[in-house]
Amino acid sequence: VHAVRIDLNADLGEGFGVWRLGDDERLLEVVTSANVACGFHAGDPATMARVCASAARRGVVIGAQVGYRDLAGFGRRFIDVPDAELQADLLYQLGALQAFARVAGSCVRYVKPHGALYTTAAVNAVQAGAIAAAVAGYDTTLPLLGQAGSELARAAEASGVPFVAEAFADRAYQPDGRLVPRSQAGALLTDPGVVVAQALDIVTAGRVGTVDGGAVAVAAESLCLHGDTPGAVDLALAVRAALEQAGVHIAPFTG
Amino acid sequence: VHAVRIDLNADLGEGFGVWRLGDDERLLEVVTSANVACGFHAGDPATMARVCASAARRGVVIGAQVGYRDLAGFGRRFIDVPDAELQADLLYQLGALQAFARVAGSCVRYVKPHGALYTTAAVNAVQAGAIAAAVAGYDTTLPLLGQAGSELARAAEASGVPFVAEAFADRAYQPDGRLVPRSQAGALLTDPGVVVAQALDIVTAGRVGTVDGGAVAVAAESLCLHGDTPGAVDLALAVRAALEQAGVHIAPFTG
Amino acid sequence: VHAVRIDLNADLGEGFGVWRLGDDERLLEVVTSANVACGFHAGDPATMARVCASAARRGVVIGAQVGYRDLAGFGRRFIDVPDAELQADLLYQLGALQAFARVAGSCVRYVKPHGALYTTAAVNAVQAGAIAAAVAGYDTTLPLLGQAGSELARAAEASGVPFVAEAFADRAYQPDGRLVPRSQAGALLTDPGVVVAQALDIVTAGRVGTVDGGAVAVAAESLCLHGDTPGAVDLALAVRAALEQAGVHIAPFTG
Amino acid sequence: VHAVRIDLNADLGEGFGVWRLGDDERLLEVVTSANVACGFHAGDPATMARVCASAARRGVVIGAQVGYRDLAGFGRRFIDVPDAELQADLLYQLGALQAFARVAGSCVRYVKPHGALYTTAAVNAVQAGAIAAAVAGYDTTLPLLGQAGSELARAAEASGVPFVAEAFADRAYQPDGRLVPRSQAGALLTDPGVVVAQALDIVTAGRVGTVDGGAVAVAAESLCLHGDTPGAVDLALAVRAALEQAGVHIAPFTG
Repeated sequence: VHAVRIDLNADLGEGFGVWRLGDDERLLEVVTSANVACGFHAGDPATMARVCASAARRGVVIGAQVGYRDLAGFGRRFIDVPDAELQADLLYQLGALQAFARVAGSCVRYVKPHGALYTTAAVNAVQAGAIAAAVAGYDTTLPLLGQAGSELARAAEASGVPFVAEAFADRAYQPDGRLVPRSQAGALLTDPGVVVAQALDIVTAGRVGTVDGGAVAVAAESLCLHGDTPGAVDLALAVRAALEQAGVHIAPFTG
Repeated sequence: VHAVRIDLNADLGEGFGVWRLGDDERLLEVVTSANVACGFHAGDPATMARVCASAARRGVVIGAQVGYRDLAGFGRRFIDVPDAELQADLLYQLGALQAFARVAGSCVRYVKPHGALYTTAAVNAVQAGAIAAAVAGYDTTLPLLGQAGSELARAAEASGVPFVAEAFADRAYQPDGRLVPRSQAGALLTDPGVVVAQALDIVTAGRVGTVDGGAVAVAAESLCLHGDTPGAVDLALAVRAALEQAGVHIAPFTG
Repeated sequence: VHAVRIDLNADLGEGFGVWRLGDDERLLEVVTSANVACGFHAGDPATMARVCASAARRGVVIGAQVGYRDLAGFGRRFIDVPDAELQADLLYQLGALQAFARVAGSCVRYVKPHGALYTTAAVNAVQAGAIAAAVAGYDTTLPLLGQAGSELARAAEASGVPFVAEAFADRAYQPDGRLVPRSQAGALLTDPGVVVAQALDIVTAGRVGTVDGGAVAVAAESLCLHGDTPGAVDLALAVRAALEQAGVHIAPFTG
Repeated sequence: VHAVRIDLNADLGEGFGVWRLGDDERLLEVVTSANVACGFHAGDPATMARVCASAARRGVVIGAQVGYRDLAGFGRRFIDVPDAELQADLLYQLGALQAFARVAGSCVRYVKPHGALYTTAAVNAVQAGAIAAAVAGYDTTLPLLGQAGSELARAAEASGVPFVAEAFADRAYQPDGRLVPRSQAGALLTDPGVVVAQALDIVTAGRVGTVDGGAVAVAAESLCLHGDTPGAVDLALAVRAALEQAGVHIAPFTG
């Protein structure tokens, strides 16, 4: 029989200069795909170099975590960037990361929007289209990582770019399969038992419990973990351990 | 017989956002190599995309004009950047430009430091070494463009990176072959006749007149032109016309 | 009888570092109120110092042209900045300009939002409120300059901050008194005769012609002029000359 | 008899956006003077607002911690900024902080250079002069805080600006009274007993032990503490407790 298989991705290299955010080294022991910040909302060049080198050494796949040009807001504020400028901003970040991946003996294997660009790309067809167009112009075989059913998924398909769906172990789901917005109470799951159970449900059963007590089908090739607090890394480790114990094969979605 | 041959390079894409500097399109009609600003001291992503597309369309070779992270000072202020950070800053810029060159159907063919990084790299072995190391780590066949006899030339040789020497038609030379510093009177040549004559001297005779009335040998594969004023572009055009009239073969140094 | 009176305001100091935009010195000969860019979307510190010194020397009133933190987009892109951060961003800019005004022997006498912040403040009550709150927290006697009937006008009133309405000589008006959006054809008036006539209409008759051939009442204490092109400065000069010839008293709205 | 008296100063508000550095709230319980970062090397506007409000509430004096425009390097890299630009950069930061201090019901009471600007100002007469000139142009009664015997001290005197000398409890001193450079081993004192003893020595005896086993006289109105790690805040608390136990009056130098 076919073993169940999942990729684990997380945001890395999200410090800037003297400032650190999360424990990149510990998180690299958990994930199979590293979304490396590319300098516009986080991630100075020296950090990018360090994270790429470490990821390559450990066999972790490198992806470009692209965002709005917004260090002050960590890319969490929607910016109404015109299409051509947004495409250029994303290409710039993708190319910059590619240099560090190359020097580390690896290469950028996927692209994932960050923060407000991620949430915008889920519902805004214009910005979703700009992201897909930027990637398609660079390399039509480079996958975009995001939410199933999003505008980004549609834009990727329209542009001929592979789309990889991810799910969340630590976010509450609505009956229609969308995430409960962060602004609502209960959006974030923090109880380790609940998070681990949701991860197992998603990966092994292809479904996730919803806030109304029901469940909804979810198809995901990757599970997004968080590591921006020490507790978060412990939780990510627990999720990985539980998946392995359940016989799940943890491996990069890039194959 | 062998025709004398020279490359013409100039700084391009040095605007930022709404701000423009120089006439990129007209200058692309003059040069064979475009030093494209990479975003740290000038050159926003959309400008980089536009200049790369135009350069590729015209067959102009694309080089990375790398500089200090200093938009406010246009990269003209020395910054004491630690070695590893400087290397990472340069790789970042190089990679970013590479993405635009690639999308334009071309690629980055050389690297040239800008402003204070250029003048520092001529005399500061540590920063010159960081530049050469960054390029060597990325691609040992990628040439550095700079001044003959500089620390950068030595660092390139030590790192196994090709070095291409350039000369200046519009700068006064000292008897030892170095440029008269910009801070001194007479450092910049502005008389069109003088500039054109110096260009011809350098390219066809391999020598340049010096401020003391003598002359010194100068070996250059590229001539650096300036285009940041309308008058400068006209002068660049005059230099090119005079060289062509003298039978010089104008072609990229990258061959 | 009472002479008709109007203030003339324009954006100044909108360069950044080596980049220039508009001719600040010539424009300072036309206006009575200078909207000086404060560094977030344009206006480096040395430029702010120079413009404040020149404005003070000429008796031109200094106002803070505040905007989003967006050098790459010149403040023309809407940014969804949370309320507290937007207030802090505006206070920061206001305070910075105050230092230069003080050293020039003057002080900041009003605040005017720039670009996307201006257009957002006209319709978005939250951001309009943040602007008014920032000003009110700093000095409740400091006026806000903007469009009559805007959310900003309402927010100013609610915060107890004076509001000064401006009108535009070179923008087309809709029958309801609002501007034709820049994205629509005919939004900008460029014919000098038309612009001068509209200025006279607004100032002397308190009304402005609309795109449907009608007219609408407009009450303005200030007329906004533009100076980012050489032609624009000439046009501004023509408007001022026509107003003076019509017996209008040109003076700062600050009295 | 006259009680011995000392000010305690520390760097605060050195985060940026989502990134934090040090525990501002705990440190504000220790110090009498807060060197608040002003946004060029650290310190976003919302952080400045928060720190000023908290400092004002606790009666801690607010000073402007000014630095080079260098978020990526935390202001720790020397930048060769031309005199007029450096003056403008400093005025900009000073004015920005002043707005937050004002809104908090306080005002900026002194200026202290940060990082590479601090160490440069100790030995570089040109940049020291620019700092003093910026402060003098703004308010000749505003003191500069720095090292005794530095170029900054001389520049302050020449500009008619008050100068306040500080000493360090956790830095090793050379026989001539200067600090052992950070690049040398043993430059930083980390043993709590040693740091507390040095603080007592400096404040109560006006002298400090030197690396050669001797001692040198040191006159300081303020003691600089550090708080960028949890351990550092504990140490700062221990220093304050020991000084209070020794009968020292802990109070702002501004009187």
